[in-house]
Amino acid sequence: MFTPSLSQLQCWHQPVPPFVTLQAAGPVLSLWLQLQTGPWPERVLLRSEPDNEEWLLDMTLQAEIRGCRHYQVVLPLHQASSRQRYSFKLLWPHHQVWFGPQGLSAAPIERLRQFCLEVPESHPAWVADQIFYQIFPDRFAPGDGPHLVREAEYQHHARQRWVRRRSWEHPLELEAASSTFYGGDLDAITGKLDYLQGLGVTALYLNPIFTAPTVHKYDTEDYFNVDPHFGGNQALIRLRQATRQRGMRLILDGVFNHSGDSCAWFDRYRTGDGSGANCSPESPYRNWYTFGPQGALGWKGNANLPKLNFAEPGVVDTLYRGRDSVVRHWLREPYGIDGWRLDVVHMLGESGSANNNLLHVGGIYQAAREENPQAYLLGEHFADAREWLQAGVEDGAMNYMGFALPVRAFLTGQDVAYQPIHLDARQCADWMENYRAGLSHGTQLCQFNQLDSHDTSRFLTLLHGDMQRMKLAIGWLFSWIGVPCLYYGDEIGLAGDNDPFCRAPFPWDQSRWNGELLAHTQQLAKLRQQSPALRRGALQMLYAQNETLVFVRVLEDERILVAIQREGSAELTLPSDPLLSCRTWTRLLGQGQLDTTGDCTLRLTAGDITLFRGFCD
Amino acid sequence: MFTPSLSQLQCWHQPVPPFVTLQAAGPVLSLWLQLQTGPWPERVLLRSEPDNEEWLLDMTLQAEIRGCRHYQVVLPLHQASSRQRYSFKLLWPHHQVWFGPQGLSAAPIERLRQFCLEVPESHPAWVADQIFYQIFPDRFAPGDGPHLVREAEYQHHARQRWVRRRSWEHPLELEAASSTFYGGDLDAITGKLDYLQGLGVTALYLNPIFTAPTVHKYDTEDYFNVDPHFGGNQALIRLRQATRQRGMRLILDGVFNHSGDSCAWFDRYRTGDGSGANCSPESPYRNWYTFGPQGALGWKGNANLPKLNFAEPGVVDTLYRGRDSVVRHWLREPYGIDGWRLDVVHMLGESGSANNNLLHVGGIYQAAREENPQAYLLGEHFADAREWLQAGVEDGAMNYMGFALPVRAFLTGQDVAYQPIHLDARQCADWMENYRAGLSHGTQLCQFNQLDSHDTSRFLTLLHGDMQRMKLAIGWLFSWIGVPCLYYGDEIGLAGDNDPFCRAPFPWDQSRWNGELLAHTQQLAKLRQQSPALRRGALQMLYAQNETLVFVRVLEDERILVAIQREGSAELTLPSDPLLSCRTWTRLLGQGQLDTTGDCTLRLTAGDITLFRGFCD
Repeated sequence: MFTPSLSQLQCWHQPVPPFVTLQAAGPVLSLWLQLQTGPWPERVLLRSEPDNEEWLLDMTLQAEIRGCRHYQVVLPLHQASSRQRYSFKLLWPHHQVWFGPQGLSAAPIERLRQFCLEVPESHPAWVADQIFYQIFPDRFAPGDGPHLVREAEYQHHARQRWVRRRSWEHPLELEAASSTFYGGDLDAITGKLDYLQGLGVTALYLNPIFTAPTVHKYDTEDYFNVDPHFGGNQALIRLRQATRQRGMRLILDGVFNHSGDSCAWFDRYRTGDGSGANCSPESPYRNWYTFGPQGALGWKGNANLPKLNFAEPGVVDTLYRGRDSVVRHWLREPYGIDGWRLDVVHMLGESGSANNNLLHVGGIYQAAREENPQAYLLGEHFADAREWLQAGVEDGAMNYMGFALPVRAFLTGQDVAYQPIHLDARQCADWMENYRAGLSHGTQLCQFNQLDSHDTSRFLTLLHGDMQRMKLAIGWLFSWIGVPCLYYGDEIGLAGDNDPFCRAPFPWDQSRWNGELLAHTQQLAKLRQQSPALRRGALQMLYAQNETLVFVRVLEDERILVAIQREGSAELTLPSDPLLSCRTWTRLLGQGQLDTTGDCTLRLTAGDITLFRGFCD
Repeated sequence: MFTPSLSQLQCWHQPVPPFVTLQAAGPVLSLWLQLQTGPWPERVLLRSEPDNEEWLLDMTLQAEIRGCRHYQVVLPLHQASSRQRYSFKLLWPHHQVWFGPQGLSAAPIERLRQFCLEVPESHPAWVADQIFYQIFPDRFAPGDGPHLVREAEYQHHARQRWVRRRSWEHPLELEAASSTFYGGDLDAITGKLDYLQGLGVTALYLNPIFTAPTVHKYDTEDYFNVDPHFGGNQALIRLRQATRQRGMRLILDGVFNHSGDSCAWFDRYRTGDGSGANCSPESPYRNWYTFGPQGALGWKGNANLPKLNFAEPGVVDTLYRGRDSVVRHWLREPYGIDGWRLDVVHMLGESGSANNNLLHVGGIYQAAREENPQAYLLGEHFADAREWLQAGVEDGAMNYMGFALPVRAFLTGQDVAYQPIHLDARQCADWMENYRAGLSHGTQLCQFNQLDSHDTSRFLTLLHGDMQRMKLAIGWLFSWIGVPCLYYGDEIGLAGDNDPFCRAPFPWDQSRWNGELLAHTQQLAKLRQQSPALRRGALQMLYAQNETLVFVRVLEDERILVAIQREGSAELTLPSDPLLSCRTWTRLLGQGQLDTTGDCTLRLTAGDITLFRGFCD
């Protein structure tokens, strides 16, 4: 009896677009598998799951080329369920082997770790082609006019704090950070669209802009109005018109887990006695929040951010379900935003908890889709977001767990809590590959990849200013699967520790810019715009050992080979892979050398990211 | 810098009941972790997820005993979310290591693979204490009376088939199997309760009993009446009263994915012209099914089993949502069943597909719970059921993927499709451990473990009659975590290939019984009844190599050590484990020898399962 050693077998499959072809009986999915090393299996089966039930289809041996067997199968598409999950089952007379996105297995591949395609695609088609730019509105570009916050203009948070106003050049301070304004606004953003387009940016994500007392505006006072200090609704309309004229996209930050304590529903000021008393028991909105012995339950115990109660139909109707809900309102004209980033979306729910969270996130998704079938719904998750992605209640997540955190760990040695972590390339790749496995190709394209954000230390600061590694990181950001988002200022070398120091005013004095980093970023943005494979291709990990990580992006006949060398230099031979059958490769970026005269050999130098482009026959 | 080799570390944690203690500020979960081998971490952290948000708590070093460090932490319980997921984070100056149910990891443990406890428990408390027995009603015990099906009494399935009636001793035949009756009924089951109690059975699961033309009755004609040929509603009431008098539980089979084609809603016969025409377009029930060019969509293309359309409110209301729905009706008096087994539950959904499946399964769960908060909801899944279990829309699954299939693979060399598979003990344990990881302790206790069923070849037949290995399998069934269910006749050595041969009439002539197997089964049932650890304890895998698999069940101070030796003999030393600190062990079953004078040493003989019981200080 031939008892298999899984390591002897070599198996390749990649769901490479385009997937679907039309046949007389309807659309079909044409799938291939390549095998190397005998003894050959007696049968090669595709295991799919129409309506969640296992279905085995025999694959046909199509060819044997240079010792490699090519199998093929045509899978009729079941229109009703758009997600097609599948894996491969190889049968010998006395044993079997399974093949899925994470390789070979003695046991069947678990349901949500199989290959996955969506036909038709449920996600907005435009997302994968974007380069996003995240803006913290008070800090990106200085506004002009009497509407800007003035020093000591008002009190907030139970009237315990006065707002402050700083000049654009004033250093950031920890004290009263959320009450400190620098005077950025929406019209000033509109005024910088030339700069952003020059950088290659095609889409904006704005931190909250609705009326709220703090500078970060995660304490919403009025969900139906843009803060007058940012220019009000008219300024948003002007920004929307200007972005549309340039074909740019715009998404806003929706804070639905909690409101601010000055929100009319919570009503801390309006009918209270000014003592900071909670929403009165007689208030018609009393059930919109949840009250315990210490008053309203707030987000992470924060009394200024009372948690909205989704068990109350009024909350559900006002925020998403109703005809004129917040979610719908801003997706409509004249605002017509392209989607929502949903703040701490995993936490919202009923009665002061996350109970029935998926139900309500699903409701938000559905309401947005009804308003605009191409709306992009993006959840903020620092931790594992797959439960939400697999449930189909989000298009993408802020991809901390699948991109930002493993890249931060590998390149900076720090984890989500800035505690020490040490990963070699294999461990980093395993983390990222394990995370992607089972997410559909379309879902992977919609992940929102960032190196940092308003909620983290800036990446350059974590790198102690190591500009070469910062360039490597930006290269990784632009070549990994998912849509890249730059956090404002990263491109010119803006530094800053965690909040508030990562929220510095953008220095418009170009003498303070790192021109090399900016040029590098512009070059990568251009490469991405010119390469369908970088934007929409599948990703296959090719090599991950010690300091080196190599992967390839694949779309139709285009290949982008990406080689990352963290430290030291390396010379390595890539394992044979049917996806690498290009005759010639052109280097697009970096210092690496690729020799394909015999095996594929790479020579890489310390701290470098190299991109090659090839076309297969 | 100390760069960790994960294999150098040893870490233990097991969520051993009882979990919860009351403190002044409310209930808390007291959790421990034990570590061996330095250099010791600087910090040991518990990572939990109140309301889905990461929360790190420092653990306290409590003691260092024989080179082993004991850490402890008290986790305040967040009442709103009953599922407590957690893992452990170990920090050194330059790196970190994570620990979860599947061991050590360089990267954070994914959300649904962490340890999980439910407080309060959401599942019915009675389930774990049961020994179930599955009965195919026409074949378990012969009925008596004029209500039994007579030869050629009626036609069914578009009037293309006549029913047949066989004597109890008549051999099974493949032809017209679903039209062939042997004359079992519910009163005959009632008459055999003495036998079942003598065996140790405490709960019955009956295959469908509602009015339907075939013998298997998965083609429901009338959801509100027990088939008159099984004795009608009165016979069910008599069975219910008799089981209650004995403290026995009773669950029924709910077939909600599809009805039969003679169901009044589908109406193939009643108003049609007898030609087998489909439900007419004028029928008020037309939308209760989904029609394509070839007529009503049936389960797996079977025209006799038209798929119910859950997009139609009438279907939803009648089956589960309405005040007098099918789900509710049978949970009420005078029937008062204890739960539902839900047929092909992953497939039901809207418009001829599984669309919105989780929504409707969740609706069934909720309706059942409203009727009886202790109802047991059990889904039939041959494949991975974790998506349903993690979504909390079922208490348990027919545990094919987590128990029946890996055990079948390991002991019989056949997979779900009876194709060859070869696993060593390590691969088998990895499969089972991977499946359990992340399911809460309570969910694991509610899994419905079987060796075989009405839908599979009998296990003894897969073993080609190997009685010793059958005894091993039954021992595994009674000692694995989850509730065991015997398929009628397995205990006396009834054999039979897949449907219809696995549905043989039970031979009540005791000369045809295998007395040794029956005594073995009775002994195991008694052991389980006498051991809280077997019924409700946690399970820790201790050893899995080649032909040998050893695990321990743990509850308070009780330990049940279970050693399985598939082939050959073995002498092995168990790795040290804090859970094995019993001074004396008593052998309860089998031939294995345990020596605890030095290390824990086991001597095992071919084909044997050995159980030892110990109590820790």
